[in-house]
Formats: sequence, structure tokens, C-alpha cells
Amino acid sequence: MNEPYDLVIENGTIWSPTASYRADIAVRDGRIAAIGGPFEAASERVDAKGLEVLPGIWHVHVHFREPGHTYKEDFQTGSAAAAAGGVTFCIDMTNNTPHPTTLEHFEEKKAMVAPKAHIDYALYGGGLYPRTVEALAKAGAIGIKIFNTRHIKEVYPYISELGVLDHGILYELYEATRDMGLVASVHHDDPEWCKRLTFRDYIDKGRNDAMAYHESFAKGYMYGHGMVAGLAASLYYAGVAGVRLHVLHLGVMPPGANEMVRHAKFDLGQDVTAELELGTLFMTREQMEKVGPYTYNWGYAPEHGWKAIETGVADFIVLEHAPHTCDDVEPGWKDMFSVPLGMTGAQEFVPLMLNAVNEGRLTLHQVARLAAEQPARTFGIYPRKGVIQVGADADFTIVDMGRQTEFRHEDVLSRSAHTSWVGMRAKGGATHGIVRGKTVMRDGKVVGAPGYGRFTPGTAARQ
Amino acid sequence: MNEPYDLVIENGTIWSPTASYRADIAVRDGRIAAIGGPFEAASERVDAKGLEVLPGIWHVHVHFREPGHTYKEDFQTGSAAAAAGGVTFCIDMTNNTPHPTTLEHFEEKKAMVAPKAHIDYALYGGGLYPRTVEALAKAGAIGIKIFNTRHIKEVYPYISELGVLDHGILYELYEATRDMGLVASVHHDDPEWCKRLTFRDYIDKGRNDAMAYHESFAKGYMYGHGMVAGLAASLYYAGVAGVRLHVLHLGVMPPGANEMVRHAKFDLGQDVTAELELGTLFMTREQMEKVGPYTYNWGYAPEHGWKAIETGVADFIVLEHAPHTCDDVEPGWKDMFSVPLGMTGAQEFVPLMLNAVNEGRLTLHQVARLAAEQPARTFGIYPRKGVIQVGADADFTIVDMGRQTEFRHEDVLSRSAHTSWVGMRAKGGATHGIVRGKTVMRDGKVVGAPGYGRFTPGTAARQ
Amino acid sequence: MNEPYDLVIENGTIWSPTASYRADIAVRDGRIAAIGGPFEAASERVDAKGLEVLPGIWHVHVHFREPGHTYKEDFQTGSAAAAAGGVTFCIDMTNNTPHPTTLEHFEEKKAMVAPKAHIDYALYGGGLYPRTVEALAKAGAIGIKIFNTRHIKEVYPYISELGVLDHGILYELYEATRDMGLVASVHHDDPEWCKRLTFRDYIDKGRNDAMAYHESFAKGYMYGHGMVAGLAASLYYAGVAGVRLHVLHLGVMPPGANEMVRHAKFDLGQDVTAELELGTLFMTREQMEKVGPYTYNWGYAPEHGWKAIETGVADFIVLEHAPHTCDDVEPGWKDMFSVPLGMTGAQEFVPLMLNAVNEGRLTLHQVARLAAEQPARTFGIYPRKGVIQVGADADFTIVDMGRQTEFRHEDVLSRSAHTSWVGMRAKGGATHGIVRGKTVMRDGKVVGAPGYGRFTPGTAARQ
Amino acid sequence: MNEPYDLVIENGTIWSPTASYRADIAVRDGRIAAIGGPFEAASERVDAKGLEVLPGIWHVHVHFREPGHTYKEDFQTGSAAAAAGGVTFCIDMTNNTPHPTTLEHFEEKKAMVAPKAHIDYALYGGGLYPRTVEALAKAGAIGIKIFNTRHIKEVYPYISELGVLDHGILYELYEATRDMGLVASVHHDDPEWCKRLTFRDYIDKGRNDAMAYHESFAKGYMYGHGMVAGLAASLYYAGVAGVRLHVLHLGVMPPGANEMVRHAKFDLGQDVTAELELGTLFMTREQMEKVGPYTYNWGYAPEHGWKAIETGVADFIVLEHAPHTCDDVEPGWKDMFSVPLGMTGAQEFVPLMLNAVNEGRLTLHQVARLAAEQPARTFGIYPRKGVIQVGADADFTIVDMGRQTEFRHEDVLSRSAHTSWVGMRAKGGATHGIVRGKTVMRDGKVVGAPGYGRFTPGTAARQ
Repeated sequence: MNEPYDLVIENGTIWSPTASYRADIAVRDGRIAAIGGPFEAASERVDAKGLEVLPGIWHVHVHFREPGHTYKEDFQTGSAAAAAGGVTFCIDMTNNTPHPTTLEHFEEKKAMVAPKAHIDYALYGGGLYPRTVEALAKAGAIGIKIFNTRHIKEVYPYISELGVLDHGILYELYEATRDMGLVASVHHDDPEWCKRLTFRDYIDKGRNDAMAYHESFAKGYMYGHGMVAGLAASLYYAGVAGVRLHVLHLGVMPPGANEMVRHAKFDLGQDVTAELELGTLFMTREQMEKVGPYTYNWGYAPEHGWKAIETGVADFIVLEHAPHTCDDVEPGWKDMFSVPLGMTGAQEFVPLMLNAVNEGRLTLHQVARLAAEQPARTFGIYPRKGVIQVGADADFTIVDMGRQTEFRHEDVLSRSAHTSWVGMRAKGGATHGIVRGKTVMRDGKVVGAPGYGRFTPGTAARQ
Repeated sequence: MNEPYDLVIENGTIWSPTASYRADIAVRDGRIAAIGGPFEAASERVDAKGLEVLPGIWHVHVHFREPGHTYKEDFQTGSAAAAAGGVTFCIDMTNNTPHPTTLEHFEEKKAMVAPKAHIDYALYGGGLYPRTVEALAKAGAIGIKIFNTRHIKEVYPYISELGVLDHGILYELYEATRDMGLVASVHHDDPEWCKRLTFRDYIDKGRNDAMAYHESFAKGYMYGHGMVAGLAASLYYAGVAGVRLHVLHLGVMPPGANEMVRHAKFDLGQDVTAELELGTLFMTREQMEKVGPYTYNWGYAPEHGWKAIETGVADFIVLEHAPHTCDDVEPGWKDMFSVPLGMTGAQEFVPLMLNAVNEGRLTLHQVARLAAEQPARTFGIYPRKGVIQVGADADFTIVDMGRQTEFRHEDVLSRSAHTSWVGMRAKGGATHGIVRGKTVMRDGKVVGAPGYGRFTPGTAARQ
Repeated sequence: MNEPYDLVIENGTIWSPTASYRADIAVRDGRIAAIGGPFEAASERVDAKGLEVLPGIWHVHVHFREPGHTYKEDFQTGSAAAAAGGVTFCIDMTNNTPHPTTLEHFEEKKAMVAPKAHIDYALYGGGLYPRTVEALAKAGAIGIKIFNTRHIKEVYPYISELGVLDHGILYELYEATRDMGLVASVHHDDPEWCKRLTFRDYIDKGRNDAMAYHESFAKGYMYGHGMVAGLAASLYYAGVAGVRLHVLHLGVMPPGANEMVRHAKFDLGQDVTAELELGTLFMTREQMEKVGPYTYNWGYAPEHGWKAIETGVADFIVLEHAPHTCDDVEPGWKDMFSVPLGMTGAQEFVPLMLNAVNEGRLTLHQVARLAAEQPARTFGIYPRKGVIQVGADADFTIVDMGRQTEFRHEDVLSRSAHTSWVGMRAKGGATHGIVRGKTVMRDGKVVGAPGYGRFTPGTAARQ
Repeated sequence: MNEPYDLVIENGTIWSPTASYRADIAVRDGRIAAIGGPFEAASERVDAKGLEVLPGIWHVHVHFREPGHTYKEDFQTGSAAAAAGGVTFCIDMTNNTPHPTTLEHFEEKKAMVAPKAHIDYALYGGGLYPRTVEALAKAGAIGIKIFNTRHIKEVYPYISELGVLDHGILYELYEATRDMGLVASVHHDDPEWCKRLTFRDYIDKGRNDAMAYHESFAKGYMYGHGMVAGLAASLYYAGVAGVRLHVLHLGVMPPGANEMVRHAKFDLGQDVTAELELGTLFMTREQMEKVGPYTYNWGYAPEHGWKAIETGVADFIVLEHAPHTCDDVEPGWKDMFSVPLGMTGAQEFVPLMLNAVNEGRLTLHQVARLAAEQPARTFGIYPRKGVIQVGADADFTIVDMGRQTEFRHEDVLSRSAHTSWVGMRAKGGATHGIVRGKTVMRDGKVVGAPGYGRFTPGTAARQ
């Protein structure tokens, strides 16, 4: 007779990108050992009756601010927030101090965050020096993140230092990333355009309060046409270099970006993927006016985002988590161009996404694809993660489609201590977050210990 | 303690359209009860060590000739041939005597074939009378097959009688099929074009031997431009009616058809699918010259077919099985326009497809998608079939990628007693065919009994 | 010193598709002898001060009903009506009794109409017998007109007899027309579709009055989807045959036709042209309700027509002239499916087109292109006609953009004795129609004699 | 009786983009007074028997180096060279010392070149300061030329100073140009890309001789992918700004540029034009190897250029004239990255273009369109120039299609004293260049006086 399983999830409905079915899941040694059941002997049982069992949700765009800016967030608080919302895997960005752009700093970051993570994670290597890409890749970078940007007022030194504005260097990063077989994930921009126009029409005119900023966003100044122009050049270079390009911030960029990605992907057959920022679908004008500098984007034209999902232009969905403290951003009510910009999203991602399912804008099949399978495939972690399948890691986000949430500052686990979505409500939320067979969240409470989350290296480190 | 499983498949590698993984499969009551293992207690065990476990392969284009033409084939011999090759599910066509175009004849056919099938099957309803479509759908037709054609010399009365040449009736069939939510699967044609041109340039000039016929095929006369013109009109009507159109014989038609399907599907967003006839990729000129009237198509331009797979124009792959006896076709060496046209494919489908995998033209992921998941989804049988997933029917095609086959007449189970592929070799073949947990084929031998195969009704009968 | 010119047109503004300029025009021997001036000696002078001098306007879609139906119209009355409106060149259709489908009947028609024409003209050869195309072409047919249609109730025997429904024959006509280098101009249809659906949903339900007919038109029954489906097949065959296809009745067909022509022309690079029926832009619902059976089309979705002009899908513009007597159509108020369908347009074409210029929907440059240069180029008569250029025929339509017209039955010169546009007004009209240097119309009055108009053979007769 | 004409051109064949016809042309007061003839009284007669009379050919891409670099070329020598070849109108570029980027310098240049021009001309305003664009436009700039580039080794200070690399400024130049209704003509680039890659793979490796340079050109380094990436961003900004963008150096850029222009123009409907550099079609590898640093481009893939003409991607054709002295470029044999790059084309343009007509690659209709009508229309000078039409300037290039030319240094009128095409032969050449009725070239000899050529202001100065 078999020894007992470590965990059995029973009575739930399992969801894949194309199907849903009733089955129990048995876990042993952190992996899915069996699907089917009933499975009798188990050290732990989760009753998922009436619940939906999704593959563990990926959040691929978090800034956990470590090292260097841990007064805003650190890997413990950030991963706790993500876990609390139902996320089981995240990919952390690179604008730290120091930035993980060399082997030494990447290894330091790996060591530093290892004891803190509540959920599994991967780390981008910082794309700044073409010659360090190989070492970063072999040390386990999941991809190479490139900030093809610089803040218009240099108020984020930790972004501007990372800015790769020289397209020669950008291209060499593409070559080096291609040689490692990784994805180059790019925040595109043409910051001189943005800077010149924004100063001319807003800042120099004294129009710098939060509402002026948000108007400039809706008009294509901040995070606007400059990003699309940067994308235009980058798509061409990526095609010449033959690198796999991953386009960040779809939805944030004006819709011309969607057409560019569509043209490259479907007309020209280029190997390009894109992630859609859900904030630009969910953040209402009312909420934007309420929170002002606590968000950097809002949904002034959400229909383009929904269409990007429908047409396959968007390969995955995210809710960017780029936290700052209240002290950081509060002055933004008066001068938003001089404060660091961001928003919270780690804890709110899953409930807001499920709320959209309840509103009929998404299906749980799409959630399983756009927030689990596709990112796992793009980053080469599939089918180790991203799917409910025997042998895969036992990562699950179990959700109750009737669960009600109101976002409140007091519930926030992020060190930033606020939520950009305060006061908004979501129907649908996670009841369990399970990572490699261990429950790390139950009913919104983080129950695991920091350090449980495991570093997941990219493909170049595994060859 | 659980009772023993009915069947356990152990030590194999499971394939899906996107992943492969090692796991055992436990079956109870004909369904997949569990995936994972090891599963101890089982009435039967299959050791799949070194083998690949695919979802049961669908063959969606067979003519088992029953009722009416059982001297060529019947459901027992046909389904045995399919089973022998590794097929576990088939969809039978409608050019019978009588044709299953009315409820009475459809029910007669259902009753007649039920005791004979070795594998599970579905039956097309014959699309001839718009008013009978509802009854056919409710009686379980998997879709409505429409012969928008007529043989140029009327030598197939059983096709010509079914010919829907009047586009008004065709359109009404589309309306009726749309109302039932089924797929209209159409053999498109414009037979008057074909007839006029073929007579003019071949038959009337005395150029009617097998090689002349095959030249006329390569030039777009037989199964040529007329089919594409018929498709052109049909795509438009299907769009107006809002029916789901399934295009048969992609690959047989000149490549203009591929562009039409692409334009409708991707530029116009029409709900259209297409099945690619692999014969036009695999049948070499040498083989065609050898077998002459024992094939009606050959691969004079196979690159268009491979491209249709690569670009998503083809949704599934088939190897048409349309058998005739040697007596039927042997006179075709001298006058191929006067004999019934067809070829064999039920038994050869899986090995020829796997041979293409070994040659690097296909992957097993694509096989799982194009010959299992996609047809199951299109016909609404997914995820009951078409996938290896708990709760799904325990249908498997287990293959040995190193298995060698030479096609020989003496191995043929079809009543037609010959193979169009005689003398050709394939590397890769099925070792087990399992239908709802029961092994129906082992090492090319049919081991099940006729009548085991079960009728699978379409979606309209299940609502 | 030069001898006097036959005619000088002075003080006007000359229009081309790309430019307008002030210059006088001198004519000698029917051709433009000089442009510039002032030209002193002239037998006749036309003062075009304040007027616009256009190249002589082509009307390429007239049914002058001769021979066989001269109680509706004949070449004298028809060409007089066209001349009165400002047209200087017309192309006559082929549904006569007998039809000009053989050399004998084509020559008979040529001889019969020669003494009657007020303006220059060309004659389509009737495309019915592939073997007669060569003779028709060499006898001077401007193109081959093919009725790929049949009237649903056979009430036009003279159309149904001409119907080429067999696509094999259609294709052979394309081959024969291609060999002659002519254009195949096709009224596409799939009349069985139209017949079946129209009977089912209108006629058999007793919904056969004029308003029901016009509803059926707007819904795509009459002159609807069947035409587009016919076009779909024809475009494919024309591409295979390599014939130059000219698509008739754009605008009458539902807008799917526009996309098909666009795709063939611009995506696939096929040699295809199309003429846009302006009636579907100009005939208001109010006018349609007023005249009922005196029009067969109306502008239920005119924006598609304007877009066809803007995007280059339409190569020329027409206002079909297909007259019937009041006795013919008056019963149509009660049963419009049983009367011959048509409308008047020869006399109204120019003023309605100029009215659109005054409304800002067209420019005179476009008029010069779409109603003169392009048809002349397509039919191979350019630069003999279609342009104001030295050496070209001295054909001019001189217009006063301020001229006011109200269409009245009493002004009609057509034997049909009515106008479909009765009561409507147009701003902008022709003051002079000049053909080969001779004024045939002045201020709406025909001043020339029948028989002056000259037969213009197509390219195959001129080689 | 009329007074005599100033000039009559008789017995020739006149060519337009769509037609050719026999007619004489009478000129009075510099304009075409009449077309037709025979015209008796004339002060001067040109017998064009056997010759083709084209609209005066435009050369829209000349660098006449004045002011500042007149040791290479000046307006007298440059315009004489152009005149000698058959050009009657040219547009001069802006990389001078000082550059015509301010009203003061633009007026200085106007004054300086006025006494020197042999043919009519227009001057680009130098796009560098958004605030000066209005003044330049009102002073008569034909368009705004923008160097979105900088030489990789700064060896052209007069280019690098003009470089608008900041996309914010580029965009503001687009806004200002749009407000004036002019065309922004842009040499696109992304010079940092070019610099980095070229240094890395060529210069730093000591691969800097002429053949290495030309290899780097064929590989997309020099004048390569950087230009296309610059174009990508610029097309987007131009669309946002709503400016009319004119793309320079099509053909020089790798073919990805052609697809970008096609997509913008035909898929997105953007107002963009492009000029094709014929050097990349005509300069053979053999000639390139022979002249080395005397050319900066060569035709390594000419088929893309021909296709750009055929598909309408190219709106006009040029043969860039960017002369340097032999002393300037001779060191380039050893280090071509350190010498100024250019080639000669003013004098060779017409014969090389006509040679292509004789070879069947172009028609004289296309020459009339691509080298006369289209540039005149794009720059708003049509129909004053660009067409043979009454009222237009009497500019003609009369050509003998049988005339033979061998390009020899000793025939060169350019101060640069050499031709990049030395030793090559052309069949077809100009016999007369006539500007506003005055013959400025006869049989390759310049017969007019400097200063005759007249400044042609752009549209903003004429409103």
C-alpha cells in the first residue's frame, strides 16, 4: 500500500485553458502526484467543495524593491502581499540599489531575498551591460529586463541608472539575450520625447498637480507616445537580432502599440509576446481622482485592452505592483511629476481579475491561460509550473467566485501600507494559495513562513 | 481502501498539445479515474515503458460504406482497420444507400452499425433536406455533412444523389445547422465547372487513363479549381448565415483555398475550421504512379499543406479513408474518370503521421492537438474525449516511435483488401489502442469485439 | 496662316483627374487640335465663361433595348436622353431580342443602331457561347457582358436566356475573352439562392408589393447575397483564367462585395475593376417610397459606396439606365416580383453626379477620372477618348455648377416616359454636350441629329 | 492675328503619366500657351522629330554645397551639371555652412544662389529649431529637411550639427511643419546604433577600407538597420502629429523600410510619401569595386527597389547628388569610414533612368510620373510644374531614346570633377532641357546663363 500523500485537495473543480473538470489532487514531495481520487491517506486535506482550483497564479511584474529601497517594500512584505491575494509565483524587477546587472549583484540579490520569499519566484537579470548577460543567464535570470527609459525628472535614480537609451547597447543586449535563449522584456520608451513635451505643455506651464498628470497620461504624454515610438524601433531591432521580445506595459501605452505588436506578431511572424496591464482596464476615473498620486495609470480607454485579449495581441495579464510609501507619493497631489510613480497590485491582482470574470469580461479558462500557462511557457518554466498536471509543481490558487472583498488600507501587507484600489470592491477571491504542496495563504491570511518560496532559475541555468 | 482500478497504464510518457510528462494512468468505468501513481491494485496493467501515451487519435473522415455498399467496406471491417492502425474514434460519412438524411434512415444506420464498431464513433447527418436537420441533430448527428458536389460521370450515384448544388438549399442547410449549434462540414465543389473542363481537355480527347487523371488533378481539374470556387461562395454564405463552417479537403484543393480560409478566419474573424488531407503531403509521385487508380490524390505540392499547419489555417489533420474494391478501381488504369475514386487511410493514418514526426515535419504535441484535441473541441466532444484528463474517456493511442511498418496488402483489415500505400514504410506506430479503458488493439492486432465501440451523439442531442 | 478651326471653346476651365486650368480649346476634324489660345479663326465658338469643361462623360451601363424591346426604349430615344443630360459616350448592354451573342446578331445590332445614335457609343458583345467570343471581339465588341444570372420569376426572358449559370461555360467565356484581351464585365449572381430565399420569405408569404420588394433588397435578398456569392466564385475563376474582370453593380451588392474586390485587387494583385452604381448612394428612402416599382435599388447604406470611391475599390461610377414603360412596372405596386425591374439614369446621371460635387461628396477631378478617364482606360479607348488632350476626340461635357434641375416626367426623352427621380432636384448640370467637335446638346436640348453618334470598336477589332 | 510665340516645339511625342500623343507645343512668356499646332509664327523653333517630349525632369535630392563647401560644388556648377543631364528643376538640401535653419541664413542662401542657377529650383528649409520653421516656410522653403542623423565619426560637421536626434525636437519640428502645411522630408537614422555596431565589427577590427565599408553597407550596418529603426519611430510620431512625412533614402535602407512605408501608407492610411534612390538599383558590384569611395551605396538587392516602384511604395525616384572632391574621398580606399560619403548623380540621373526604360524596367509614363508629376504634386507646385499642360511652366526634357552616353570624368560639370559612374554606358539621353521656354541645354551642352534659374517658393509662402 502507498504511503500517505502530503496533501489532498478534494471536491474542487479544476480549470485549464480549455477545460474544467471535477477531480481531486494528491500531492507528494511538492509535486502533483496524482489527479483523480478519491485519495484516502493524506497528511493534510483541503476541502475545495464549491471552489475552483486554478493553476497557481503568476504575477510577472512586481517590484519588491530589494535591495536598496526596502523602506517601500521588501521581498518578505511584497511576497506576503502577493500570497495574501492568491498569487503563487512572481517575477521581480531589477530597479534596485545595486541593480542586479552583474553576476556579483545578481548573486547578492539571490542570497538576500532567499530567506524572505513566501512564494516561489524568479528574478530578472538587469539588462545594462551586454557582456554580463551570459553570466546573469547562467546564474538563473528568468529573462533580461531592460529599461529603455529614464524618468523625466530623474526622480527615480534607480530607474534612470538602468536606462538603456543607446540603441546600439539595446541591440547588443538583444544579441546577448538571444544567444542565451532568454526573453528580453522591455519597458520601451523614448524619454527625450516624453521629457520635452511634458515639460513644455505641463510642467513649464505649472500644470503639475495629480489631475494634470493624469490628463497628460490620457493624452499620451506620460507613459504615452514616446513608449510606442520606442517600441517601434525595438520591434525592428529585435527582428534583426532574432531575439524573443517580450513587450511590457501593453495597455499603458496608447493603442498604436497594440497595432504594432499585432503587425509584428501576425503579419510578419515575429517572435514577440506582450503583457497587458490590467490597471488600465480596471482603474476608473472616479478611483483615479480619489487616489491621485497613488496610481500612475488609469483606464481612460479600456476597450483597447479587452480587444488585445480577444485578438491574441496580449499574451498575459498583470496588475503591476510598483509600491512607494505614502510619504513618497503624497506630495504628488501638488506636483506629481516630481514624485516616484507607481501603484499597488500584488495583493489586488487576483480579486480584481476574478471580479472581471464575474462581470463576464474574462473566463476562468482565460485566467488559467493568461496568468499561468502562457507566462510559464514564455519563460520556459512550463510544464514545471503553469499547469495542473502530474509531475508539475503543486501550485494552486483556489478561488471562491462568490467571495467579496473591499480593498482597505488596513488589510495591506505591502510595506507601502496603502492600496491604490482603496474602497473598490471585488467579487471573487482566493481562499487558498498553495505552493509546492504547502498552503501559504488561507482566506487572505498568509500562513507560511518567509523563506519557503523558492528561486526558479531561467532556462539558461538549467541546460 | 479503494477497490482496484480496471486498468493501469504505467511507465509511459503522456502527451498533450503543449506538454509531455511521465505519469501512470488509472482507469475505472471507462473513464480516466486518476493520473499519477503508482497505482497498485488494477485488474489489468499496460506497461508503456519507452512508449508515448497520446490521447486517443481521432480519424474524422472515414467512409465505412454502410449501409448499401458493404461489399467495399462495412462498419466492422472499417473500424477494425482503423483500430489496427491506432485510431480510437472515427466519424463516418454519409454517402450510403440509403443516405442518413432523414430521421428514419439515420436511426436505421445507427442501429445497423451499433453491433459492428470496434472503436467509438460518431455519425454525420446527411445534409440534403433543410427540414430534416433538426431531427438528425436531435438524434445525435455529430455535424451535418454536405456534399456540395456531384461526380462528373455520375459513377457514384451515392454521391450524386446527395449533391446539394442549389445554393439556396445549401444556405437553408446552413441556417438549420446554425439553429442546432452544429458544424456544417462541406465537401465544396462546383461540379459543372469540373465536368465541363475535364471532359473538354481530358475525357473528350481520350486522355482518360490513370496518369492522365493524376495530371488533371495536379493541374486543378479533378478536385481542383471548382472546389475552391465552391468554397468561395460557401464561405460567404456561411458568414451571412452565421453557421460554423468546417471545410473538408484542404490540401486536396489547390492552394488558393488555403488563402481563402486564412482570409475568412484571420482577417474577417469568421468561425471556420478546416481539415487537412495528409494524403496530399505523403503520397509521392512514385507511389502514385505505382498505385494509379488506388489513390485519387497525391502530393504534387506538399509545401502548401505544411504551411497550412504552421500558420493555423489547418485545424486538424486526416488521412481520408474512402475504400473501393480492387474490382471497382482496377479498370481505372485505362479509364480512371469512370471508376469510383478513393483511397485507403484508416489503418495507415497513425503510422504515416508518426513517420512525419520522425522526419521532423510534425511534433507529437501537434499530433495531440490536430488529431485529438481540436477535432474533439470543434465537434463539442471535448473534454469528454480528445484529452488525457481525469474524467475524460479513457481513450489512448500508445505509440512506439521506433516501430517499423511496411504497408502490405495482406495486412489490410479493410474489406477493400488493399492499401493505397503498399510498399511504403513508416517509422513510428501504435502498440495499443484503448477505448474507454478497454484495449481494442495490441501490436497491430485487433483484440476487441465488434459492437464494443459506442455511438457518440453530437451536442444537439445532449442538451 | 492656318485655316479656321471648326470649333473653339473659349474662356472655360478645363478639368483633368489631377488638375484644372484655364485654356481655350480648338477643334478640327473632330479632334482636339490645340489647347491654349486665344484661337481666332473658327467656324463656331462656344463661350464657356464661368463654366467647367470636363472630358466628355461616359455612361457605361445603359440598356437601350434595341433590338427587340423598342417599346421601352430605342437607341434614338435612349441616346437622346443621355445626350440631354450631358453624356457623350455610352456602352450598351446586351439583353435584347435577339441578343448580340453571335456575329450575325452583333452585326445586325450594329447596323440597326448606327442611324439612331446621338452620341458615340460602344456595344458589349453578349457572352453566352465561348466559341463566338472571338468573332464578337473582332467585330468590335468593347467587352464581353455576361449575365451570370436569371430572373427569379423568369419575367425577363431576355435576361434569363442570356444567363450563364454553368460556371464551366463562364470559365470558358473568361478564357476566350482573355485570349482577345478584352474585359469580361459580369452581372454576378447565384440566382437559385435568390429565388429560393425570396420565394420562401416574401413571395410565398404574399409579401410581394413594392415596399416588401424594397425591404427584401435592403435585407440582401433581391440583388443581394446571391450576387456576392456569385462574385466570390467568379473572382477566383477570373484569377485562374487570367482574364481582366470588370465587376458590375458594386453598391447594389451588399458591402461584403466591396471587401472581396478590395482583397482581390489590393491583397492578391488581381486585375479586376468595378463600377459603382450611384443609385444606391442617391436614391433616398423617401424617393423610393414615392416611386416604388420605378426603381429597383435605393440607398439604404450609402456610406459603403462613398468609401468604395475613397479607397479605390470603385474604378468608375454609373447611374444605371434600365428603362421600362409605366405599363410594364405600374403593376409592381402590388406585385413587384412579377414586373421587370429597372430605373432611369441616362438623363439624370450628370446632374445627380454634379449635385454630389456641390454637396462636397465628390470633386470634379473625381468626375473626370471616374466617369471619363478610367472607363476609357479600362476599355482601351484611352487616350482617344476620356481626356482633354491634343489628338483626342473632341468630346466635352461643359457644365454650370450653379444650374438647377428638377426632374420631371415631361422633360424625359427616354421612350419610357418617366424618371425614377421625379421631383428630386439637382444643383449642377451640363450646358453643352459636344461629341467629336459637334454640339449635340445645348442647355438640355438635344440639337444634333440621330446617326451622328459613331460606333467605337473595342481593342480586338483595332489590332 | 496673334503675335508670334516665343518658342514652338514641333514634331515630338508628348508623354504624360498615362498617355503619349503627337502634338506641337507653343510657349509664350515662359508658360505653355498652346498645345496642338501647327503653330506658325515663333521666335524659336525646336524640331523634336523622333524625340520624346517629357515634362521637365525634377531632381529632388541635390547637395549643391552652398554656402560653405563650394570647393566641392556650388549652385552654378551643380545646376549646370543637372542641366547638362536634362534636369530642369531641382531641390537643394541644407547641410551647408551656415545651414539655412534660420530666416537670416535661409534668406542669405536664397540671395547667394539666385545669380548662379541654370535651372529652376527650390530650397529646403533646415529643420533644426521648431521655432524657426514658420519663418522658413513663409520665406519660401519647399519643405523642411531634417537630418535625423549624425555621422559616426563626425567627419561631416555640417551634417552632425544639423542632426536632430532628440525625438522631442523632431516631434516639435513635425508639429511646426504640419502647421505650415509643408512636407517634412527626413533622412532617418538611429546613429548611435550605427556607430556602436560599425565600430565594433569594422572600425575597431581594422576593417575600414572601401570594400569593408561596402560590405558593411550590404550587411545593414552603414546606412542600414539604424535608418529603418529611426523610420519606425518617426512614422509613429508623424502619424500622431498629423504631419505629411516624406521618407528619404528608400532603397538605401534595408527592405524592412519598404514594408514599414507600405504598412503606414496602405494599411493605416497615413499621409506618407517616399523617394527611391536609384543608385541602389543601378550601381553594380563591379562598378562599386571600381570606384570604391566614390559611391556610398550600391545595388546589392535591387529587386526590392523595383518592387517598391511596382507596388506604389515609392512615390518618386532620384539619383542622389552628394559630391565631394577627389581629395576628399581618395583616402577612403584605405579608410572609408573617415571620409565624407557621397556620390554624383545630377548629370547622370536622366540618362541612367532612360537606360532603365530601354532595358524594360521603367516606362516613360513612369518617368513622367515619378520624376515630374508626383514630386510636383507632393511639394505643391503642381500643376504649375510637373505636367505638360496649358498654363504650366514651359519646362521640358526632350529625350532621344537612342542616344548613347559613356560617363567620363572629362565631361563632368560638377566641381567635384568626377563621376561615380565612370565607364558605365547608358542608352537614352536628353537632347534639350528647356526651362520656362528657354533652352538651357542642347545635346549635353549647357547653353543658358547662370542666374536664369528661378527660386520656386513652397506653398506656405504663396498663401
